Amino acid sequence: MIHPPLPAQTQNSAPTIILSEPQLGENIGTAARAMANFGLKELRLVNPRDTWPNEAAEKASANAIDVVKNATLFENLEDAIADLHHIYATTARPREMVKPVLSPESAATLIHEKQKHNAKTGILFGREKSGLTNTEISFCDAIIIAPVNPNCASLNLAQAVLLMGYEWLKQAETNSLGRETQYDGPAQEGTCYKHASPATKQELTALFTHLKSELELSGFLRTVEKTPQMMRNIRNMIIRMQPTDQDVRTMRGIIASLANRAYKAPERK
Amino acid sequence: MIHPPLPAQTQNSAPTIILSEPQLGENIGTAARAMANFGLKELRLVNPRDTWPNEAAEKASANAIDVVKNATLFENLEDAIADLHHIYATTARPREMVKPVLSPESAATLIHEKQKHNAKTGILFGREKSGLTNTEISFCDAIIIAPVNPNCASLNLAQAVLLMGYEWLKQAETNSLGRETQYDGPAQEGTCYKHASPATKQELTALFTHLKSELELSGFLRTVEKTPQMMRNIRNMIIRMQPTDQDVRTMRGIIASLANRAYKAPERK
Repeated sequence: MIHPPLPAQTQNSAPTIILSEPQLGENIGTAARAMANFGLKELRLVNPRDTWPNEAAEKASANAIDVVKNATLFENLEDAIADLHHIYATTARPREMVKPVLSPESAATLIHEKQKHNAKTGILFGREKSGLTNTEISFCDAIIIAPVNPNCASLNLAQAVLLMGYEWLKQAETNSLGRETQYDGPAQEGTCYKHASPATKQELTALFTHLKSELELSGFLRTVEKTPQMMRNIRNMIIRMQPTDQDVRTMRGIIASLANRAYKAPERK
Repeated sequence: MIHPPLPAQTQNSAPTIILSEPQLGENIGTAARAMANFGLKELRLVNPRDTWPNEAAEKASANAIDVVKNATLFENLEDAIADLHHIYATTARPREMVKPVLSPESAATLIHEKQKHNAKTGILFGREKSGLTNTEISFCDAIIIAPVNPNCASLNLAQAVLLMGYEWLKQAETNSLGRETQYDGPAQEGTCYKHASPATKQELTALFTHLKSELELSGFLRTVEKTPQMMRNIRNMIIRMQPTDQDVRTMRGIIASLANRAYKAPERK
């Protein structure tokens, strides 16, 4: 009664779990186990510290060995998220950036909303010791922070994955039972993608690369040590826009046009 | 902002956690840690298998050592729950008995309800291997079952405690702030505007005018009849970003820089 088979619809639309530079194989295994507990299947690893395939990970995963065996490896975050549309970053504290902050529950609601529109989502988790860098977070659409006791705030990797999986499955079951979620959605959620789909992360990364190279040529990024911070700000700004693929084409057209004028000007002379 | 000190009211009204015949000290320690993560303090042990005090438990509890040190020992369940008013039993599956079955979320709601009437509550967890006996469950007011993947249903002791603590604290924070939507709220509402304020409409209008004039010069808006639609798209895009005043300055810097390169290029020749 409580544990019916997972609804078919949830089985291929669950969020992808992405671990950035996980340190211990054992933690990858227990995170995979927590995923399996709540029906999450797709695991991606960015640059794990230890070798892969990893025996400790397989051992710790217990009967979630399939999640570990099917995990895919990436050298950097951009590649790991290239085909996804929305990425949420789990952090222990808010960062100094303008980025929506969600609870696990509201993030799960948002993920289910995105899934309804066939968007692919991912949840990003950082290193065991130090979490995610601000640069990594700047690639994400929102931050997820779990409510915890401020005097004992640290959750381990598997526990953080567990909470997200739990909230996701809870709502998957609610949805599949035909009960409406009591979510009075944000403007964001109601965003109407008429005749357009959200840009993939690959399209966004290409946009950032294009803009960066033009800004280097134009002298906007003349102070080398300030470039990473400036690019983080720009990524945060543009991702907050939740751009469609058409928006990305428009922005690239604008950049090319503004820059092109420079390029063509000498010929006109 | 996200992690205020726990409201005083919650500090002595949190549910008591009762572990019946826990087998490994280490699991008691990690359960204690999960309690501390969510502000639960009172731990009772019924007949633990290993000796008590237990070094493995203390070690595994990390900075939740106080919870372990203050844990109280009982020889049987009846004594352990004597002073409490309502007990909820966590189980992996429904039992053959007529007993209300609650989700962690609805159990947490009920516990908060009971607390409001000064009733003392407890949540009971069974042995790592075999869970609770039907006899033990018969002492309890209701059963709690977490929604999990039926193909991978087993949560370890600390994870089961974690989910209950999480649901309890989530509702404690909601209640104490009198805001029902703190964690259910729209993404936008949670946006953290640290050291920045949303741009005024005047600043935005100036940005649009600036961009439009540069795009006319660069040839991007070369088809006059398409200009209004194109500018609507651009405004929609940028407003969706909910830009701060700083974001507007950054965008204007980018536009000026990209355009400037054109302007300066001939001089460099």
